[in-house]
Parts: sequence; C-alpha cells; structure tokens
Amino acid sequence: MSKALPKRSEDYSGWYNELVKRADLAENSAVRGCMVIKPYGFAIWEKMQQTLDRMFKETGHSNAYFPLFVPKSLFEAEEQNAEGFAKECAVVTHYRLKNDPDKKGKLMVDPEARLEEELIVRPTSEAIIWSTYKGWIQSYRDLPLLINQWANVVRWEMRTRLFLRTAEFLWQEGHTAHSTKAEAIEETEKMLGVYAEFAENFLALPVVKGVKTPNERFAGALDTYCIEALMQDGKALQAGTSHFLGQNFAKAFDVKFTDKTGTLDYVWGTSWGVSTRLMGALIMAHSDDNGLVLPPKLAPHQVVIVPIVFGDDNAVLLETCKQLKARLLKAGISVLLDDRDTQKPGWKFAEYELKGVPVRLAIGNRDLQNNSIELARRDTLTKETVSLDGIEDRILNLLDEIQESIYKKALAFREKQTQKVDDYETFKKQLDENPGFILAHWDGTPETEERIKTETKATIRCIPLDQEKEEGVCMVTGKPSSGRVLFARAY
Amino acid sequence: MSKALPKRSEDYSGWYNELVKRADLAENSAVRGCMVIKPYGFAIWEKMQQTLDRMFKETGHSNAYFPLFVPKSLFEAEEQNAEGFAKECAVVTHYRLKNDPDKKGKLMVDPEARLEEELIVRPTSEAIIWSTYKGWIQSYRDLPLLINQWANVVRWEMRTRLFLRTAEFLWQEGHTAHSTKAEAIEETEKMLGVYAEFAENFLALPVVKGVKTPNERFAGALDTYCIEALMQDGKALQAGTSHFLGQNFAKAFDVKFTDKTGTLDYVWGTSWGVSTRLMGALIMAHSDDNGLVLPPKLAPHQVVIVPIVFGDDNAVLLETCKQLKARLLKAGISVLLDDRDTQKPGWKFAEYELKGVPVRLAIGNRDLQNNSIELARRDTLTKETVSLDGIEDRILNLLDEIQESIYKKALAFREKQTQKVDDYETFKKQLDENPGFILAHWDGTPETEERIKTETKATIRCIPLDQEKEEGVCMVTGKPSSGRVLFARAY
Repeated sequence: MSKALPKRSEDYSGWYNELVKRADLAENSAVRGCMVIKPYGFAIWEKMQQTLDRMFKETGHSNAYFPLFVPKSLFEAEEQNAEGFAKECAVVTHYRLKNDPDKKGKLMVDPEARLEEELIVRPTSEAIIWSTYKGWIQSYRDLPLLINQWANVVRWEMRTRLFLRTAEFLWQEGHTAHSTKAEAIEETEKMLGVYAEFAENFLALPVVKGVKTPNERFAGALDTYCIEALMQDGKALQAGTSHFLGQNFAKAFDVKFTDKTGTLDYVWGTSWGVSTRLMGALIMAHSDDNGLVLPPKLAPHQVVIVPIVFGDDNAVLLETCKQLKARLLKAGISVLLDDRDTQKPGWKFAEYELKGVPVRLAIGNRDLQNNSIELARRDTLTKETVSLDGIEDRILNLLDEIQESIYKKALAFREKQTQKVDDYETFKKQLDENPGFILAHWDGTPETEERIKTETKATIRCIPLDQEKEEGVCMVTGKPSSGRVLFARAY
Repeated sequence: MSKALPKRSEDYSGWYNELVKRADLAENSAVRGCMVIKPYGFAIWEKMQQTLDRMFKETGHSNAYFPLFVPKSLFEAEEQNAEGFAKECAVVTHYRLKNDPDKKGKLMVDPEARLEEELIVRPTSEAIIWSTYKGWIQSYRDLPLLINQWANVVRWEMRTRLFLRTAEFLWQEGHTAHSTKAEAIEETEKMLGVYAEFAENFLALPVVKGVKTPNERFAGALDTYCIEALMQDGKALQAGTSHFLGQNFAKAFDVKFTDKTGTLDYVWGTSWGVSTRLMGALIMAHSDDNGLVLPPKLAPHQVVIVPIVFGDDNAVLLETCKQLKARLLKAGISVLLDDRDTQKPGWKFAEYELKGVPVRLAIGNRDLQNNSIELARRDTLTKETVSLDGIEDRILNLLDEIQESIYKKALAFREKQTQKVDDYETFKKQLDENPGFILAHWDGTPETEERIKTETKATIRCIPLDQEKEEGVCMVTGKPSSGRVLFARAY
C-alpha cells in the first residue's frame, strides 16, 4: 500500500481527488477536462444504470438514440436554451484530415473539408429530439411520448473535477411529450420522485426535493425540479433535475397535435436527467479516511473472500473458499474470491477497504478447524468471528443492515447540519463555521438571491416541496416571506 | 395500413429502406448521415447489447469508458491507423459559440475560442486507449488487461444507409493487452468465436469465420479476423471483426511491461468490435415482403395478444387476455397485450406482422367458449387453433422451434448460394446472375485481388478458417493457389 489518503478534516478536496484515483474509479485523460472511467468505477455506474433503466421502464418509458451532433440552425431554434449553452459548446467544423505537407507523418485539418453548417456536439438533446418529434407526433393518439436516452454529452467547462464537473460526461436524458399541461407537470414530478427514490434506496443518500428559483432554472424550462443532497463537508450537490418545458420546444420546433375534438395545439414537454455526477455524490456522501464506503446495492462486489494462506498446505483452505463463494453466489450475493498468490492478505485487506467492499470474509486454516470465518464490515470497520453454518442468510441480512445503516448515518448528518437561520450575520457565520443546509426566509427577488450569492457564495438550492407555510421576513431585506428556502454552498 | 412494402425480388434496396422506416426501427435525422434509432429498433439493439455484454463478462472482460475526443497528436501516433481513418474524421476546432452581431437571435462560432490542438471525434479508440494503458501497465501482474467499451463513434461516410453505413454509429470495442504474442492471438480468435456464437445462436445467422487479406485489414493491425454473413440478395455483410494488433500500438504509445524475469518488452494487443450494423444484418437476413422476421431471442416482444372485440360485451374477453399475458410473463416469455380500442384487429395483425413479432395470439368470444386461441407464426405465416391449457409450454417450445427454423432457413439459403467456381468468366456470370458466396482460387497477390475488385466489384471477404487444403490455380492469372478464398459483392 502506498501512503495514506489525505484526511477529510484536513483536506476534503484532496481526499476526494486521491480517493477517486486510488480506488480505481476514474482518472484524468489526455483530453482536457475529459475523464477515463476505470473498470471499477464503471462497474458502479453500470449498477446505477441498470437500476434506473428498470425504474424508467416500469414507469412506461422506452429507450431510443438520437444523434451526437446538432446542426447550428437547430441548436439555436429555442433561443433561451441555445443562449444558456452557447458558451460551453464544442463545435465540429471539418470532416477530414490530410497529410501535413510540412511535417512528414503528421496530419492537419483539411481546409477544403469545411462543413457548410457547423455541428454542435450535444450539450443536451432537446433541440435534436424535438426536431425529430415533429415527425412523430400528429394526433393525441401519438401521445404521451415517453422516451429516454443513455448518452454522452459535452459541456466545455473551464474548471473540471473527476465525476463532478467534466467536459464530457455520461448521463440519461428523458424527453417526453404530452397533450396537456397537467399531464406534463405530473410527469415532471413523477420522474423527480423516481430520482429521489433511487437516491434514497440505492445511493443511500437522503435528498431534499424542491423547485429551483427562476435564476437557477434549466435554460428553456418553465420550471426545474431538483433533488439536493448534502456532502460530508457541508456543501450541497444537485443530484438530479426534472424540467417542465411548457410548450417552449414545441413552439420552437413547431410540434403540434390534433386533440380528440379536432383542435390543433402545441405539445407539452418535459426533460429530466442524472449523470455520472452521481458517482461523485456517492463517493463524497459516505466514504471515510480509509477509502470508499459503498452501499451494498451498488457495490460491484458485495463480499470479498480473502484466504489467509500460510506455508504450502492450502489446498483444503482454497477449496473451502471456492465452495463458500459458490454458496454465496447461489444466494444472489455478488462475491469476489481473491486467491491471488502475488499479494499478501494484509495488502488485500487494505485494498478492499480502499475500494469499499461492504463485507470482507477472511479464512485461515485455524478457522477451518472451527468451521468459522472472520467477517469484517466496511462501514463500521468492525470484525467478528462467525460460523460458516447459515452464512448466506447472515450475510443477506447484514447487507440490508449495512444499506440501511449507511442511509441513516447520512440522514443523521444532514439533520444535524440543517439549520434554521433568521438573520444574515448568523447565516454568514454558519456558512463559514458549521456549513450545511440553511433554511432561511428570502424576499423572493432575483436581486436579493444574487446579492447573497455574491457576498457569501451560497445559493438557493431549492424551494423545498414539503416546505411548511411560515410567515417571516427576508433575512437580508426584511421584506415579507411566506416560507423558508434551502441555502447552501454547492458543488 | 399504408401501401405494401416494395417486393424484395423487384427492389431489394427499396424494400430494406422502407422496412427500416415503417417497422419503426430507425430514420434519417436532421444531421447528414446520422440516424435516429427509434424505440422499437433500440429495443432490439438493447437485447443484442445485453447478450454480448454477458458473453464478454463470462470471458473475463470488464467495461470502462474512454473520452469521445482524441487530440490530433495522439491520433497520429500510430501512423497506419491514423492514415486509415484520416479521411473520415469529424474535427472539433472550437469550444464556444457567441451571439452573431449581424443576425439577431442567431449564434456563430466564436473565433476567439479556437482550440490550440484540434480534437478528433473518435472513429475508433485505439489511440486514446493505448495512451491510457501506458499508465496502467508496468508489470506482467497488470496483464492481461481485458477491457470493453460501449460507445458511439463517428466516421464521415459520403454514402450512408440506415444501420449499414452511418456517420455516427453505436458499437462496442474491446481493447486488450497481453504479455505474449500467443496469448494475444488466442484472445483475437476467442472473441471471433464469441461473435460467431452470438451470430448463430441469437441473430440466427450462419457466418463464415475467416481472416482478411492484407488489403482489407484494419489499419494498424497485423491480422484481421472476421465473420461474414450472406444476405438474401446474395451480397455479403461483414458482421464483426477481431484484430491482432501485434505490438504496433504498444510501440506507438510506448507501453512496456516487465516480465517475471525482469525483462522489459512491449505489450501485445488486440481489438474487436461489432456495431449497430448488426441490425442491418438481422433485418436483411430474415425478413420477407410482409415485413420483419425476428428471431425470438432478440424480439422485444416474443408474443403479442390481440383481443378480437365485438360489440360492447368484452369484459370477460379482456380479462382472459390479461390472465393469459400474466401466465406467459410468468413463464419468462415477453408479451405485449394490445388492447387499444383506437385500432381494429386487422390493423394490429398487419402492424405486428410488419414488426416481426414471432407469435401472435388472437382471441375472440367464440374462442373463449372453446377454451382455445388462434396462434399465428410470423416466420411461416401459418395459423392454427390451440387449447389454452398448457399454452405456456407450447409457446416456449414454439419459440425455440422458430429460432432454429429461422437459422436453418438462412443456412440452407447460404449453402445454396455458395458456389465453387474455377474460371473467371463463370465467376463474373455467377455474380450477375446468381449472386452469393463464391469459393475460388486466387494467386495471393494484392494486384489480382485489386483487379477482380475493379472488374467485378467483388472482394475477397475472407480466407476461411476451416478452408480445406486444395491445390489449384488462380482463376485470373493461372498461378498456383493452395486453397479457395471466399468472394462476394458486399455491403
């Protein structure tokens, strides 16, 4: 093992960066701002994808695939959306390379292969999708149209961080079309619910469901719903968004339908997405100074078995390990047996601790005689000796317990770090000294929101959906407010 | 139903294009050469993905993800590969748009946001992946490295056709690194075997396994293995390739490892891929003038149930259909119940015939009384009345039978259309009058290969792996040949 990770309490940001690299989750690539997702990190992302994909299908959605490129003329059709993304667009201008006459063996862009119209690498796909929907929707019979796509998108970011903010990232984007406003709003809220359920039940991450202020809305949306989570350093992370698009894109791309009475109207739209950013949330919410802590439902290996070999006579031990692996697999548990002889048990213990495998089973020749095994739990770092009899049930129960325990710990942390604050001085002090979510009154104006952001770097994460009605006065301007909103500094 | 499809015998190409669109598989997009894969087409692709992904994992591979973009300097590092793809590369030159001062509401590429180094949109990922492997491989302990990626790639094609040749397509690309030449060759052949097994057992498509001639090799490979299938019009389609890269990329990107004796050497590589082109193969191999014919293992719905409603009293009928659906689902069969009242049964029959659903069950009130159902088989277009008792087993067996029957039909066709030809005149005549695979002797020179291609548009599809030793003379030059190679005109 190389030297220890930085401690969260001393260098949270350094801890995160090192952890992502050392646990083999991702690394920076030769392309500015783009990451390589390594096999172990990708295996976690696959588990997220499979779960979300199932949830999307259970709620009636189908997958499809739309082009990577958006012609500039389509991209600019919905003006708010185009303006919102224009500054971070990668643009394809040429379609051919040729040999560089001045440098043998080198290539150059062929100036004769310039595209008539530039192509934007999709930063999001509303434009290309709604231009397609125009051909798919004529009548109410074609609605609702409930489509999702798993794709890569590119947003040219100046400051990037692995998983949290990268120029290229992987995501899913749902794009639905409806015949009524009410149905589109219902869909927007339903998908927010799916995201919240996924966050809580799989990521083990409690989230606040809410609505963004107009300032923080998706460009082109009438309303943006979001789920907001709290990281261990007291900063918020937006973990998913669901947008009610009204008829904006239908109007920009002339998508109309005939209703049952024969009347022609524009279609109502939604879009919603989560991305590889969830990997960042997962890592930052639960992990500790020893490495990753993974919720069992998303761990690539829920259990690792490490044989404690000694001397040369290990045949029986290794055979027992194989049988144990088979038993656990049969019970539906994902298991890795690390019987490599190129690494020592101590190295393996540290490795799987770093990689957050929820349960570690170690078994030596003495355990064999006792029909027992050493069981270590990653989240609590506790160990116990248990019998091999009925080990399957014991581990199945333990995995559930760990999943719940990780969630409860994160929830307790969030509750502790969520404060109601009524005056601006305390608000600022709290942000610096004991950061977390702050529920405070705000006068509802973009000016005050902007002032708070400039002065404190805290933003309104959302207006919580379950907000209680509470008359109060804005902590900054003293103007009336009818409920608290959720503030935090954020990723 | 709109007008019938063109007939294969009259306009095979028109039949294919219309079928792809009308069966809701894919359509052209607003972006030149890029397609939209529609939900029904994507559902078939998902089944292919899931199956292949499982097969890759069973053979020890892990998924990962590498950047979409390749910096030009990395792209050109392996010269053969770079030269092979240079003419079809989409190039990103700028990273920002701005408001066009001359056109209100329009955007333009910001000339101040020009990239210092152009980025190539990956046409294949050897360059970016091997530049990454350099950091991952130091010792024999790091090998073999067995990685796959599911991704989109872009190759700027001038003439495009849905699924068969598109500027952007979806694929998987495996990239492996090994410590010995023998192991890398074994991997190359193993993955060819996986592709052949997938083609035969899932696509129901017999394939010839072989090796490409040097002319037809992947740019940068020492050997390209392929599987070749025959379409109903007698043209060949390359359905997958597996490349032995030797140490080419290791040398270009300086990827070395220390072996057990402490000696430093370059790593040996392979890469292998299949793409959404398989969708084209699937469609063209089995479908008929009525529409798609899908092998049950890849059909999004293996069975469709159509209630024959009549008058108003259909409650019992619809309830029976629901119960039947539940029974079939429970037996592991994917079922669609189309109980929409917006379309008539006749319309639905034509629709599911067009979409290739393997088994159609129709049930009316009279069937209810007889405890029976009408069962129609898509591949043979036959119908029979069967009892509802034990329907699950009957359908499970039938699905197996259909899968096998489709394969056998394609195999019989290929055998009929595979001819041994010994003289060039017969070769040319055969290509025009009775096209298919032709096994002929060739003198082994690129010149003769090129001449045949120019004169007949036929190419050497492969040197079959199971080729029998047979002394002969080249049909063009009369020079000696030690075995027949496989010729065809190809997609």
